[in-house]
Parts: sequence; C-alpha cells; structure tokens
Amino acid sequence: MHQAIDRLGTGAGGTRNIAGTTHEHVLLEQSLAALHGKQAALVFTSGYVANETSLATLGKMMPNCVIFSDALNHNSMIAGIRNSGAEKHVFRHNDPADLEAKLKQVDPKRPKLIAFESVYSMDGDISPIAEFCDLADRYGAFTYLDEVHAVGMYGRRGGGVAQERGIEHRLHLIQGTLGKAFGMVGGYIAGSAAMVDFVRSNAPGFIFTTALPPVIAAGARASINHLMNSEAERQAQRDRVAVVKQRLAAVGLPLLDSESHIVPVMIGDASLAKQVTDLLLERHDIYVQPINYPTVPRARSAFASPPARCIRMR
Amino acid sequence: MHQAIDRLGTGAGGTRNIAGTTHEHVLLEQSLAALHGKQAALVFTSGYVANETSLATLGKMMPNCVIFSDALNHNSMIAGIRNSGAEKHVFRHNDPADLEAKLKQVDPKRPKLIAFESVYSMDGDISPIAEFCDLADRYGAFTYLDEVHAVGMYGRRGGGVAQERGIEHRLHLIQGTLGKAFGMVGGYIAGSAAMVDFVRSNAPGFIFTTALPPVIAAGARASINHLMNSEAERQAQRDRVAVVKQRLAAVGLPLLDSESHIVPVMIGDASLAKQVTDLLLERHDIYVQPINYPTVPRARSAFASPPARCIRMR
Repeated sequence: MHQAIDRLGTGAGGTRNIAGTTHEHVLLEQSLAALHGKQAALVFTSGYVANETSLATLGKMMPNCVIFSDALNHNSMIAGIRNSGAEKHVFRHNDPADLEAKLKQVDPKRPKLIAFESVYSMDGDISPIAEFCDLADRYGAFTYLDEVHAVGMYGRRGGGVAQERGIEHRLHLIQGTLGKAFGMVGGYIAGSAAMVDFVRSNAPGFIFTTALPPVIAAGARASINHLMNSEAERQAQRDRVAVVKQRLAAVGLPLLDSESHIVPVMIGDASLAKQVTDLLLERHDIYVQPINYPTVPRARSAFASPPARCIRMR
Repeated sequence: MHQAIDRLGTGAGGTRNIAGTTHEHVLLEQSLAALHGKQAALVFTSGYVANETSLATLGKMMPNCVIFSDALNHNSMIAGIRNSGAEKHVFRHNDPADLEAKLKQVDPKRPKLIAFESVYSMDGDISPIAEFCDLADRYGAFTYLDEVHAVGMYGRRGGGVAQERGIEHRLHLIQGTLGKAFGMVGGYIAGSAAMVDFVRSNAPGFIFTTALPPVIAAGARASINHLMNSEAERQAQRDRVAVVKQRLAAVGLPLLDSESHIVPVMIGDASLAKQVTDLLLERHDIYVQPINYPTVPRARSAFASPPARCIRMR
C-alpha cells in the first residue's frame, strides 16, 4: 500500500498532512536529520516559510514565551517573531554581553527562545554560537539557529557552522534551506522528534500549503547525500574565496573583512554599483549582483545617495 | 546579455529581485496575465505565500484600510489579513446581505478590500462573485478573489469561475495556484500593472525569498498554455464528476450537494473515515483522503467524536 500511495503521490501536491507526504519527503527528512545529527526534520516550501511559521508557532504556543532576536536577523525570522505575538527583545548583532543583559531582565521562570543566524549574508560575519549556547544554558533558553548561508558549505558533512565547531548538539532547532548550496528549492528545520512534531502539528505555514513536488525532494536529497560524503566542493569553495579576497585586496578594492565565503565589496551608490556589475558581465563575463534597498536597509547606505552598497561574490 | 543572465539563472534561486527572475519567470507571468485577462501577474513560492504576503501588504500599506473577509476563507487569507494589522470585518459565508450590512457601518472615505474565494474546497460551494462585485462598486471597495480551486478547471481558457461568468474584469486581484490543476507548485496574483507592481515592491514574502526554479516555471507555463487552448480536460472532469455524484447519490451515500467538481461525502467520525478510505484503497484501488481537523474546524464535526467529516473525491 505504501508503494501504491507513492505512485499516486508523484503528481502535484496536496497538503503534507493529507496527500503531499510521499516516500521522497520521508527520505529527505531522514537525510536532513542525519545531516544535523538530530532526531527529526521537517520540510517546508521555502526557507522563508520554515522560519516564519516555525517561530510564529513556537512563540505563540509556548505560553508566556519571550523571544530574543539578533538585530540583523533575516526578514523571515522577524516576520515569524512578530506574527507570534510573543514579547520580543532585540539584542545587538552578535553581542553576547547585550544578549545576557536582556536575558537577565526577564523572569527566570518564563520560557525563552534565542533566535539567530550563523553566517549573516550581507556582511559575511559569523555569530558566536558557543557563547550564545552558554547563555541559553545559564538562562534556560531554547536555541534557534538559521544556517541558511552555511549548510552544505561548512562542517565535515555540510551541516553548517555549528557542526564545524562541534556544537550542533547544543542547538534545539537548526533551520536551513534546500535552495542555496543544495541547488533546489525549499526549507526545513531539524531538532528533537518532540519539537519537530510540535511544529508539524501546529504550524499553519506547514499545514495549509502544498507539499514540494517529489522530484524536488529527490533532487535535494541527492545534493545533501553527495555533500555529506564529499569534501571537494567545500575545499574548492574555500580556495576560490581566498583567491578572490586576496586579489581584490591586492588591487585596493573596498572589501569587507568577512570570515565567511561571502565577499562584500562596498560601492555606496546604487547606480554606480549597477554600472560596475554591468561592466563586469559585458566585458569580463563575470556575474555579480548589486545589492540595494530593501535587501539592505537604507540606513546602511545612508552616506551615499541613492542607496546602494556592494557587489557580492559567492 | 539577456541570454547570458538566462543561462546563469538556471541554477538555484536567489531572490526574485536580485538573481531569481529568469526569462522563464517573465514568460510565466505573461501567460498568467493572459490567462486572467489582466495587465500583469506575479509568481510566489506557493499559493499560501501569495495570499498571505499580498493581503498583509495591501492591508498594511493602504492607509486606514478596512478588510472584509468571508467567514470560510482559507487560512492563508486569514493569516495575511491578521498580519496586515488592518481593521477586519468577517461576513457570513457567501452572504451579500451580511457583507452589505458590514460595508454600511464603515466610513465611506476609508479604503476597503473584500477578500473571498470562488470555489470553497471543503464544501464545494461557489461564491456569488457578481453580487460581491456589485457591492464593491457601490461602496468603493477593492475585490480580491482566490481562484485556487478553480483555475485550469473553469472558464473558457481555464481562468476560473469569474472567467466562466464573464466578470473577471470586475476583480482587482485574482489569486491562484500552480499546484493543483496546473500540476506543479507555486502561487500567483494577477491584476493591473500598478497593483501588481505595488505588491512586488513591498511584499516581504516576495522580496525576501528564493525564486521558484526555472524548470518549475517552465512546467507551469506549459500546463497553463495547454489548458488555455484545450477544453477536453475540463469537459472530461465535468462528465466524471457528474457520474460520481449520480452513482454516490443512487446508493444513498451522504453526499453534500455541491455545485463544483468537489464531492464531499460526510462521514462524521475520524476513525470511520480512515477505515473507509483504507478499504477503498486496499480493495478497490480507489484513493481518496479523509479530511480531519485542523483542515476542517472541530466545530464543523461537533456532532461526531472524535472529529472527522468526509471523504472527498476530486
């Protein structure tokens, strides 16, 4: 019968809890759990939806919950936290001291959740994951880590920065994407069976939407399984990033000193950034994208008018 | 250069306004606009996201806006309206008199939006679209119609029920899915160039997420273009639905009297519904899904315990 449902399930969607969970989705979620060393994983239509509906659900369903959110968290996390209706404290970007000051102000008995990213995509910096986990232990908080810009690219199996640092077991939920290093589309969370089942049973953005097509699930699983067993791509990326950084610095380009694979070059003017990227494509066959508002806040480029800031090479 | 970007754009995502809008997305949006006789269309990662982020954006960005929402609207519309923060009035399902009573109570000068569906998926009934448009004209309201369960299946080109009734021009925004009749995944809105551009420029669920893969966009376009030019599938579906309804009624099964292709059979008990659908699959190779809470509200099956209600044949 399982096979019969698989066969029937290869067409379009249906919601995951009615007709959309095919054998391919089950296998993909098993691979994702293994990728992060967790008991379970849950796949969503996008990384945006994974963040929005997971955080909205946790913040809403944990009675009296308080969420602590890094100041530079992605829009999808901000939206989820806001939509949860939970009390929110925004701490200074990557700043454990400020996070601790804010944790201290809240009643120790209230449930707490700390939401942050590993690699921040706009500046390429990486968060102090271990320090945040120490604080979570000390103040009894859940940890929610967005590894969207790290999965596939960091860690011995491509599980992300937490894995590379040997601390992925300290994160309660790890969120990631199937749409960047894994080359498909979709998002997920991985964690304990109980927490994943809690989100599965309560998150509207999971329950009331169509499943990813099985072909996408199968493609993502193939990518994940390959990158879990091959270090060559990660090594090649590191090598190329090092060369790009070295060459840009050598010619004196205004490079942000990032510790990740993200190499932001600050331009500071929208039309100039566009001109630069157009020239790179036309003359040199190099494709980089100008990043402007609203991807980066206007305030971040306030010194330039019109707002614009960088070309970015990944 | 367009071709160069197309070539580069066939890998995974990037957000639509950075790297994700390939030639395939542009062609798909042109097809969707043509499907509904509108100036423009915008594709999202899912129908859920299309509803949530479009309604949230419209309700938030139109100053002092009031939204009128059908009582049985889908969770994605409810979420978008709630997340917009706009004042909301819920009118009785498919009831123009109640909608008018609620429109009357609101200051004529405030911007208004009426949000409703054409085919409601749980009972299979269809809304009085023309009457709602009359009221929208009288009270100066925008109309937002979810045709998710109708696109591909109704109308001379598969544009939905509004098209079948010759009134699609009266809807300001039509929302639909690429994941049901069109057999892929994704969602969209279609409307005037100005309204679509307004959502494109402001909706977080569009801006901060990954584009659908070009292969999905191409597949959806192939489905749409086929169903815009072929009536055979719509006729076959109507014929088969009529036969199913006739046979179920002939043997006295408790069939809801739906006017659409959706054929709900009320069971009223969750475990019994599961038993029935298991037997149909095992003994007769017929695959139908039991529909339980939270897909339908507990209150809808309050006469039975545990909550469950129907098998559904589409």
